[in-house]
Amino acid sequence: MRNLNQDNITQAVIASFSNTPDPRLKEIITSLVQHLHSFAREVKLTEEEWFKGIQYLTATGHKCTDVRQEFILLSDVLGLSMLTIAMNQDKPPGCTEATVFGPFFLEDAPHYELGADVSNGAKGAPCWVEGSVRGLGGEPIPNATINVWQADEDGLYDVQYESLGHSQARGIMKSDDKGRYYFKTIVAEPYPIPVDGPVGTLLGATQRHPWRPAHLHFMVEAPGYERLITHVFRDKDSYLDSDAVFGVRQSLVADWTQLPDGSFRMDYDFVLNPKAKA
Amino acid sequence: MRNLNQDNITQAVIASFSNTPDPRLKEIITSLVQHLHSFAREVKLTEEEWFKGIQYLTATGHKCTDVRQEFILLSDVLGLSMLTIAMNQDKPPGCTEATVFGPFFLEDAPHYELGADVSNGAKGAPCWVEGSVRGLGGEPIPNATINVWQADEDGLYDVQYESLGHSQARGIMKSDDKGRYYFKTIVAEPYPIPVDGPVGTLLGATQRHPWRPAHLHFMVEAPGYERLITHVFRDKDSYLDSDAVFGVRQSLVADWTQLPDGSFRMDYDFVLNPKAKA
Repeated sequence: MRNLNQDNITQAVIASFSNTPDPRLKEIITSLVQHLHSFAREVKLTEEEWFKGIQYLTATGHKCTDVRQEFILLSDVLGLSMLTIAMNQDKPPGCTEATVFGPFFLEDAPHYELGADVSNGAKGAPCWVEGSVRGLGGEPIPNATINVWQADEDGLYDVQYESLGHSQARGIMKSDDKGRYYFKTIVAEPYPIPVDGPVGTLLGATQRHPWRPAHLHFMVEAPGYERLITHVFRDKDSYLDSDAVFGVRQSLVADWTQLPDGSFRMDYDFVLNPKAKA
Repeated sequence: MRNLNQDNITQAVIASFSNTPDPRLKEIITSLVQHLHSFAREVKLTEEEWFKGIQYLTATGHKCTDVRQEFILLSDVLGLSMLTIAMNQDKPPGCTEATVFGPFFLEDAPHYELGADVSNGAKGAPCWVEGSVRGLGGEPIPNATINVWQADEDGLYDVQYESLGHSQARGIMKSDDKGRYYFKTIVAEPYPIPVDGPVGTLLGATQRHPWRPAHLHFMVEAPGYERLITHVFRDKDSYLDSDAVFGVRQSLVADWTQLPDGSFRMDYDFVLNPKAKA
C-alpha cells in the first residue's frame, strides 16, 4: 500500500475496511468511500477546494448546539433528508405521509391538556387546530402522543430566541378516548430557514431562496403503530412549489379557514400505519 | 415540486441549484448532490442510520478546535485527502512528491536559525536533519521557507499537550545561499492518529489500526516555485505498508542512520516544481 494513485486508492481504502465486523456498517462505509471518491474524481477537486470543504463542514459543526442542528438543515437543503424519508416510507395508501423532521424539534416540550393554548404567548393570529388519530383500519387511537411545534408570525421558533427561557408554540398532548385531539395555537406563516450559518452561505452563493411554506410540525406516536413525523401545510401558500427543503406532499396540505373574528381554524386527521406483527 | 419521490427528488434538487452564478460551484454542488443521493439510494439508508450520520458529523465538528482538525483526520482515513493530492500533483518526474497535510499544522510556528534545535525540549532521541532545496533544473534555491513539524517519542504533537503553552518539535527556517538547510530535532517514531474522537470511533468499529509510520512533516515554499507539502518517512518502519491515512510514497522514504552515540541523522533533498509562467 505505497505509491497509491488516483486510479487505485479507492480500492485500497475499501480494502482497509474489509475486517469490519458489522456487515451493514461495512456495506455503508464501502458505498460511502466509493461515492465520495467518485465525486472528488468527477469534479477533479483541487486541494484549495478540498480545504474549503473542510472549513465548511467544520463551521457547520460549530454552528450546531442543543437547540440548533445545522447538519440537519444542510441535509434538508440538499434533499438528502427527504430522499431518506421517501425511501423508507413505503406505507400502504391511506396512511398519512411523512415529511422532514427539521432542525427545531426539542425532546422536552411542555405537556398540555387537550384544548390548551400551546402558543404560550408566541406572536401570531389565533388558530384552533382539531382532528383525529386513527389506524389504517379506521379504528380511533386513544391516548396517542401528539407532539406539535411551529414558528411564530415572525418565522422564528422559540429556540431561536436566545433569551426566551421557555417553550412557545410547542407542546405535547394525548388524544382522547375517541382518538380526537384539539388545541389552540397561532396560525402558521411561511418563513425562511435560518441563513445566519453555513447553510445560509450555501443558499446565498447558489441564489436559492430559503423559504418554507407555512406548516405545523407533528410527531404522532401510539403503541402498536409506526411513529409518524410530518407537517400539515397551509393551503394557498406561495412557497408550496418551491419549499427550500423539498418537503411538500399534496396530501399534507390542509384548508386553514379564516373565521369572521380574524382567527383561523384547521382540521386534519392523522392515519397511522400499524406495526408489522413479529 | 410537490410529492417528490426517491426517483425524481435528485433532479429536483439539482434543478434548485440551476441559478448558481459561479460555474465551478454549480459543477461541484451538482456532482455532490448526485453522488450523495446515489450513496443513500445504493445502501437504502434508513432514517435511524441517517440520524446517526448527522450525529457523527456533529460530533466531528465539535471535536474541531484551533489545534485539532477532526474533519481533516476523517478525510485522511477515508483516503479523500490523498486522492485529492494525487489528482492535483501532476508534477514532472524528479520533483519531490507531495503527501497529506495532516491535522496538526500550525500557522504560527517559531522561527529558527539554521542549525538550531527545533525540538525545543520535546522528548526523543536526538536527530540531525540536513539537505538541500533545489529547483527541477538543479538550481539551488536560497532563502526557501522550510516549515517542519513532527510528533515526539510518545507519538504526540505539541498541540496535543493541553497545558504545554509553547511549540515543540515544530519550526520555520530559511535555506542558506546555497539552498542548504539543517537543524537538530528528535527522531520520528510511528504513532497512532488521535483515537479519542469520532475518527477513533470509526477505526474501532471497522477494526482498522490507527498507526502512521514515522515521519517528519515538511512544507517548503519559495517564490517562483509551487509550494510543496510532504513528509519524509523513516525506512524500515513496520507501518510503511499500512499507513492509516494512505500517505506513503516510496520516494519519500529516507535512511535514518543511527550514529555510535545513539543519535540519528537523516539527509533529504527537496526538489521544487517551478511555477508555470503566466
